[in-house]
Amino acid sequence: MKKIPSQLFLIGLLFIQLASPAQQKAVEAARSWIGKEGASILKEYAEVLSIPNHASDSINIRRNADLIQKLFSGRGFSMKQLTFPGSPPVVYGEKKVPGAQRTLCFYVHYDGQPADPSLWKHQPFEPVLYDKAMYQGGQKISFPQKGQAVDPNWRIYARSASDDKAPIMALLTAIDALKDSGIGYTSNIKLFFDGEEESSSPHVSSILRKYHELFDDISLWLLVDGPVFQTGDPTLKFGGRGVTSMELTVFGPSRPLHSGHYGNYAPVPGQLLAELLSSMKDRDGNVTIEGFYNSVEPISEFEKLQLSRVPDIDRKIREDLGIADPEGKDENLFQRLLLPSLTVQGLSSGNVGKQARNVIPATATANLGLRLVKGNDPEKMLDLVEAHIQKQGWHIVYEEPTEEIRMKYTRIVLVERDKDGFPASKIAMDHPAILPVIENVRAFTGEKLVLLPSEGGSNNIFTVIFDQLKKPGISVNIVNHDNNQHAENENVRIGNLWYGTELMAVLMSMPAEKNMVIKKR
Amino acid sequence: MKKIPSQLFLIGLLFIQLASPAQQKAVEAARSWIGKEGASILKEYAEVLSIPNHASDSINIRRNADLIQKLFSGRGFSMKQLTFPGSPPVVYGEKKVPGAQRTLCFYVHYDGQPADPSLWKHQPFEPVLYDKAMYQGGQKISFPQKGQAVDPNWRIYARSASDDKAPIMALLTAIDALKDSGIGYTSNIKLFFDGEEESSSPHVSSILRKYHELFDDISLWLLVDGPVFQTGDPTLKFGGRGVTSMELTVFGPSRPLHSGHYGNYAPVPGQLLAELLSSMKDRDGNVTIEGFYNSVEPISEFEKLQLSRVPDIDRKIREDLGIADPEGKDENLFQRLLLPSLTVQGLSSGNVGKQARNVIPATATANLGLRLVKGNDPEKMLDLVEAHIQKQGWHIVYEEPTEEIRMKYTRIVLVERDKDGFPASKIAMDHPAILPVIENVRAFTGEKLVLLPSEGGSNNIFTVIFDQLKKPGISVNIVNHDNNQHAENENVRIGNLWYGTELMAVLMSMPAEKNMVIKKR
Repeated sequence: MKKIPSQLFLIGLLFIQLASPAQQKAVEAARSWIGKEGASILKEYAEVLSIPNHASDSINIRRNADLIQKLFSGRGFSMKQLTFPGSPPVVYGEKKVPGAQRTLCFYVHYDGQPADPSLWKHQPFEPVLYDKAMYQGGQKISFPQKGQAVDPNWRIYARSASDDKAPIMALLTAIDALKDSGIGYTSNIKLFFDGEEESSSPHVSSILRKYHELFDDISLWLLVDGPVFQTGDPTLKFGGRGVTSMELTVFGPSRPLHSGHYGNYAPVPGQLLAELLSSMKDRDGNVTIEGFYNSVEPISEFEKLQLSRVPDIDRKIREDLGIADPEGKDENLFQRLLLPSLTVQGLSSGNVGKQARNVIPATATANLGLRLVKGNDPEKMLDLVEAHIQKQGWHIVYEEPTEEIRMKYTRIVLVERDKDGFPASKIAMDHPAILPVIENVRAFTGEKLVLLPSEGGSNNIFTVIFDQLKKPGISVNIVNHDNNQHAENENVRIGNLWYGTELMAVLMSMPAEKNMVIKKR
Repeated sequence: MKKIPSQLFLIGLLFIQLASPAQQKAVEAARSWIGKEGASILKEYAEVLSIPNHASDSINIRRNADLIQKLFSGRGFSMKQLTFPGSPPVVYGEKKVPGAQRTLCFYVHYDGQPADPSLWKHQPFEPVLYDKAMYQGGQKISFPQKGQAVDPNWRIYARSASDDKAPIMALLTAIDALKDSGIGYTSNIKLFFDGEEESSSPHVSSILRKYHELFDDISLWLLVDGPVFQTGDPTLKFGGRGVTSMELTVFGPSRPLHSGHYGNYAPVPGQLLAELLSSMKDRDGNVTIEGFYNSVEPISEFEKLQLSRVPDIDRKIREDLGIADPEGKDENLFQRLLLPSLTVQGLSSGNVGKQARNVIPATATANLGLRLVKGNDPEKMLDLVEAHIQKQGWHIVYEEPTEEIRMKYTRIVLVERDKDGFPASKIAMDHPAILPVIENVRAFTGEKLVLLPSEGGSNNIFTVIFDQLKKPGISVNIVNHDNNQHAENENVRIGNLWYGTELMAVLMSMPAEKNMVIKKR
């Protein structure tokens, strides 16, 4: 861990008294329950994982919803399904706690990515247990009998084992563990199980509006999704980048031409596109579009401090990705994720490989993806790209160019702007609703807790919570980073399921703020 | 027509006496025969066009060969089929002429491009007659009865109507016409009907070697293929460009990455490829690769003179192609075809359009096509491209980069060089075997004859004739330029079939050089 500048450390000191006994009790409760019931927890989890869960599979998605409703009802939560035409149900739950000063809402999604069985070693919805990860040479083993010890390095392979049913099992087990040890909740608890996150949750906003009275009293949303840091260290994230995109089609001759008959005469769209794209970045990968970085909101000193504490894994990441130099040279991944990005996500013109022909294609197309950070407006960022294109001498059209336009301009580009972009959502790390969470989690994890100001990816749920509900939220991560999320042979490491259980127990029983020290460190 | 600088005109004067009476007799013979037999010529041509003729259709391709053999045998030519394993037969013919001082060989191909009937208005091998071109609003009409007048603006629609069965019919008709008028041949005549030209004639070189004793005595090859000038003016061409290609694949991360999680960090292959390609040309489309134009052999003063006489159709071409400015700005198409070209024939990385995803692709690929002119060696030109790539700071590999190479170099490109490239083939316009042809054709066509130093395209047959046989050759064009060659609704204008007949008659009966004036004008 990096040394912390002492003045920052001092600025960061706040409030009254460290509250580790409460967290310790919760963790002990979870460990004791896991020690006794490990085998039956895995058995119950296998049942949860055995139902196919793609959002478009309307019959199975309801079977998932019904099972979740049943499992939490059986543990004393008041459950119901929130419906909206065309959407899988949201499974909603609540547990009122007399005298509680705040209401926590755990967001989890129960739908999963599509799974192509032909790519999987085992059937994606027939969970199997391994003694370690397949890529580590793991072997298939039987699920344990009651009382049999459970190794934390075991892995369950199944679709959604990590993304995102692991938090469902962690919550169920934490509830059982707290009850078993007689530890009460310190907050009202709400549960929100989304059934279409992998399809970008198109109805969540409407459902939150339709059932708004259920959500008005929430103090803090806890988004339990995504993996912990690549080192395996516990992790909290405070937002995600925004996203938008733009497609550019440039024009050569009005029809594909024989490259012999016209080569060296007819403009080559692939060449023109290369010229345009190469004007957008310098050789170090920094964007050269005027104003591209101007609206970026600077991060706070507190965030800078947390960023300086992130483990240095740059070499490891570069080896994993097979790259000698990242874009931006002197910055690491986590610094780079705090800037907007411009990515050539696709290129197409004529054909390559065996399909290549001796032609001058009529068009060449590039798909540009933009990720946005706090301060970047999606529309204005696309405006900057357009202004840059014009400065390079291009004539922009928004539909196929007419013959007249073709005869007038040498460089013509058809611009298609993404209409569904959304801005970044990031909560200040020192937001008053967030600091207690950091403090409670750190009391459990110790100083190895990694605090990342923002994910690189874009999370529609963050946007809805921050922009529509005007509520604070934080991303709580529990699963192993090598879980093959979205791909074949998805898995969860049992140790991470246990870590998640302990973390859920800590969060459900965390003391009211007035009883604890909040250190802004 | 452009004014000819008088000093060039004077330099160009050569030899003895203008020989127009011979050409005039031949043309009159052709016209008289066509006037009497037009209807039966079209009927016979429809029969020739009714046999499917893709080189891979081994049964039908032999039916074509047999028919050609029969038609020329019936007109007194000694015919046979030259065979080679895996190749359609070459139909070979000869007519020895006592006392002839030279041997002309007419090259024609009888195979055609594939034809997808679903795209055609009529079945491609069921020839139909139109009163003018479809795109001019033409209507289908019945084939004429014997004695009925034939309009030169009529068109026959069928696969290979222009490319390249029209010369077969022109030759047959010219033979009939000369016989009918009692005009004898002035040269020994040989015929070479290729059956796989549209598949790049892969066996022609071997067949010429196998049967070399048939070809040793040829004085001049006349390649009768391809359309006349865009204005419809009669045309001779003196060679073609060479061709080669290169595929470049540049590398980003070792696997496609989520553009959120790594965007702004992982190098983007499409961006790197754009940077590389844009370094290869300036904004006017001129190639900036060092040495790219150095080996170009300058054209002769005589060729410059001919080039200056080519009708100015630049505006018409640009309107047809829908382009405001061609590459190279101040030069016309025919000047540009005398330089080597570099064309981005294909681009591919990730996906665009509806398939676009939020990814950083692992690779980006460009296919580069090069057309070469006299002086350019295919291998050396590819070497220049590679040297340029290295000068831009790239590490070149010839197979997938290893992890070690990935960790060592920021910019890595996999280069795949075309192994089947061949150099340009162009004969000097004032070659002693060529000037008489120009002079005889011009005596028939008048001053509107367009002489093009080189086609833009590449012709393997030219290469074989020049480089393997060491013989002179020239491209003689007869069909209309708007013939939809290689596409659906291919057609021939009847007037061009008649022009071709007249031209074949002129060539077969052109006086021995000693009797004519050769003006190098």
